[in-house]
Amino acid sequence: MNAAAAQTDVSSPPELRFADRMRALKPSAIREILKTTEAPHIISFAGGLPAPELFPVEAIRVATDRVLARDGAGALQYGVTEGYTPLREWVAAHIGETVGLQASAAQVLITHGSQQGLDLLGKTLLNPGDTVVVELPAYLGALQAFQAYQANIVGVPSDAEGVRVDALRAALGREPRPKFLYLISNYQNPTGTSLSRSRRSEVARVAEEFGVLVVEDDPYGRLRFSGDAAPALCASAQNGRWVYLGSASKILAPGLRVAWLVTPARELFERLVTAKQAADLHTSAFAQRVVTEAVADRDFLPRHVARLCSVYGARRDVMLSALPQHLPSGSQWTRPDGGLFLWVTLPEGLDTLALLQKATESHVAFVPGAPFWAGQGPSNTMRLNFSNATEARIQEGIASLGRLVRAAQSKIG
Amino acid sequence: MNAAAAQTDVSSPPELRFADRMRALKPSAIREILKTTEAPHIISFAGGLPAPELFPVEAIRVATDRVLARDGAGALQYGVTEGYTPLREWVAAHIGETVGLQASAAQVLITHGSQQGLDLLGKTLLNPGDTVVVELPAYLGALQAFQAYQANIVGVPSDAEGVRVDALRAALGREPRPKFLYLISNYQNPTGTSLSRSRRSEVARVAEEFGVLVVEDDPYGRLRFSGDAAPALCASAQNGRWVYLGSASKILAPGLRVAWLVTPARELFERLVTAKQAADLHTSAFAQRVVTEAVADRDFLPRHVARLCSVYGARRDVMLSALPQHLPSGSQWTRPDGGLFLWVTLPEGLDTLALLQKATESHVAFVPGAPFWAGQGPSNTMRLNFSNATEARIQEGIASLGRLVRAAQSKIG
Repeated sequence: MNAAAAQTDVSSPPELRFADRMRALKPSAIREILKTTEAPHIISFAGGLPAPELFPVEAIRVATDRVLARDGAGALQYGVTEGYTPLREWVAAHIGETVGLQASAAQVLITHGSQQGLDLLGKTLLNPGDTVVVELPAYLGALQAFQAYQANIVGVPSDAEGVRVDALRAALGREPRPKFLYLISNYQNPTGTSLSRSRRSEVARVAEEFGVLVVEDDPYGRLRFSGDAAPALCASAQNGRWVYLGSASKILAPGLRVAWLVTPARELFERLVTAKQAADLHTSAFAQRVVTEAVADRDFLPRHVARLCSVYGARRDVMLSALPQHLPSGSQWTRPDGGLFLWVTLPEGLDTLALLQKATESHVAFVPGAPFWAGQGPSNTMRLNFSNATEARIQEGIASLGRLVRAAQSKIG
Repeated sequence: MNAAAAQTDVSSPPELRFADRMRALKPSAIREILKTTEAPHIISFAGGLPAPELFPVEAIRVATDRVLARDGAGALQYGVTEGYTPLREWVAAHIGETVGLQASAAQVLITHGSQQGLDLLGKTLLNPGDTVVVELPAYLGALQAFQAYQANIVGVPSDAEGVRVDALRAALGREPRPKFLYLISNYQNPTGTSLSRSRRSEVARVAEEFGVLVVEDDPYGRLRFSGDAAPALCASAQNGRWVYLGSASKILAPGLRVAWLVTPARELFERLVTAKQAADLHTSAFAQRVVTEAVADRDFLPRHVARLCSVYGARRDVMLSALPQHLPSGSQWTRPDGGLFLWVTLPEGLDTLALLQKATESHVAFVPGAPFWAGQGPSNTMRLNFSNATEARIQEGIASLGRLVRAAQSKIG
């Protein structure tokens, strides 16, 4: 470079040049609109938040006191990347008991929320342009995590039993071969639908046939209000080519950011550990020990989860009763057996993104469905959360939503 | 794909194919050797661990109790990606007071340890093959974070005043233009050396001349035992093109994983937030509030840091007195004014990696210097940590190290 060029640089420094991957990773416009709906007078069905009044604050306080009294130095020191051994042991036992998945503590990686598990999978597995197969509509955070590694997202439609096997087979058979299949098996975000028991075996078989890694995300599985529990999809996978993601966020508290990734694929596990070491060294030793101590009382978690299910189940019921009273005929919705969300399809011609822009006036908020389709879907869908608002607020909010929808419908009709 | 090919897949599923970036990100062989040195009878100068007996366990317990009593729901709920506002405000004030850096809370991003700040910078800025300029020897975790994005690492030698300006100018002038300059300004890891006051202005001026972003990592700056404090390197940067990284790990506790990244470059900040959202949603709301509550007592942190400095300074002194007693003539070492580390250069011909392999026998451990040079450096160097062992153990450990070095020296020469 010559002196003249350097001189130019001094007078007008060049713009910062960002990585190409940032082009796929844009701040969400919807997130910006939703920020305007955070005022207390707005009834929000938009977030994915647990009910704060049910947080086990006292149990966490007692657990923290015990951890600091017994092992303060351990809780406050650096830890190993894989995670705190007693927590990894608890996770291995917990998934054996709850979803029939046989795994050892050595196959458990503790992450800073399940979102980090998704990020590490992207980092470890994805070159730009690599294909990831997802069910549609799909969890936005997963799309974002994979898009950050410039994934080619291929969507497969789902029905009342989960992802459709014929379409899945077509997607997995594509060349170049997809790197992995990602899905939420229980009370899916955003639809609230679960993968049926028979569909689990079929999906596992098809994935195996094509040699594709199965990534099963199960943050909501313990929140079951009705219906029967099915074993994890991964429990049907025979070839050891699976990753199971679980989390303390919905059963204990998301603010702790403690989750787990489990896989018997040894080389993948080791690379995930290496990637996590480069990403954040390890998950908070303090938060890991607090979770471990809280669940050490074997009665606590089942009792706490039963309470969550009782309250959330009643809220779901209230929402399911209110919807037919207030939404116009031709509207449809899912009837989830658990989790945090249900999914509404309004009559054709209604646009939920346009509706949301009037949300502040009508004092109700929700998430429009289009983004969950990775840009490929209908605009008359929306996700409603039923865990975060009281029953009275749900009644009131669905009534407002109904007025909003009917007003929009009268204009187009 | 035809049926025969599918059949082959079933009988012998293809190996998992990892992302190309994982080729640059290998588990460290040295880390494996160091695992063998974790037994209690081994005196380890290898880690970068704070002294666990100085952790403010009681202050953390009181802070946690207060947080849960006053704002349990906030501490346990999801939070915004940018971080907890009162903590961001404290960081802005803290860096103003301690390193003369003027920043607003809106310019502060709370990260899950400073390692995450490095990872997010790599994710946001680096395409494969992009150049990052570092001082040599360099912090291993930073090399790892940038290599995970397939960075081309260009090293610049440093001397007793920090990175050398002539060599820096040559490196920054290269085409294609480097994306950023990364360095640790105070008590550098691994050397213990600080960037001198006059060198800070020169480095800032050269970076500005070439329009290169300055990333200043300052995890150790508050741990000053002697010498004068200098303002942050970033405080000399006039064009707003800087990123400053600070952390609670060394002044409070690493197990909390609470750190901060500060930058006035607005577009960069927003992209870092987007990248963090995709990476882990946000840093533990619980840990952020505990840190905020602990530092809310304005006397606590200065008093605690003074205590750390008193103990670590005495340990440094003991190590500096023991080294000339035990190491062979021709050995050299740095005399840091603070931090956790000093850096030893043994006489030519000695290989510290070979020495480490005998560490278990001699009951002493350290980190060989070669890896800190990104594969370009002399093999007769090593990093010694002085914060983690008591004075008596330091005496004993340096004596063992001396015997080990002398035995190796007698063999080669």
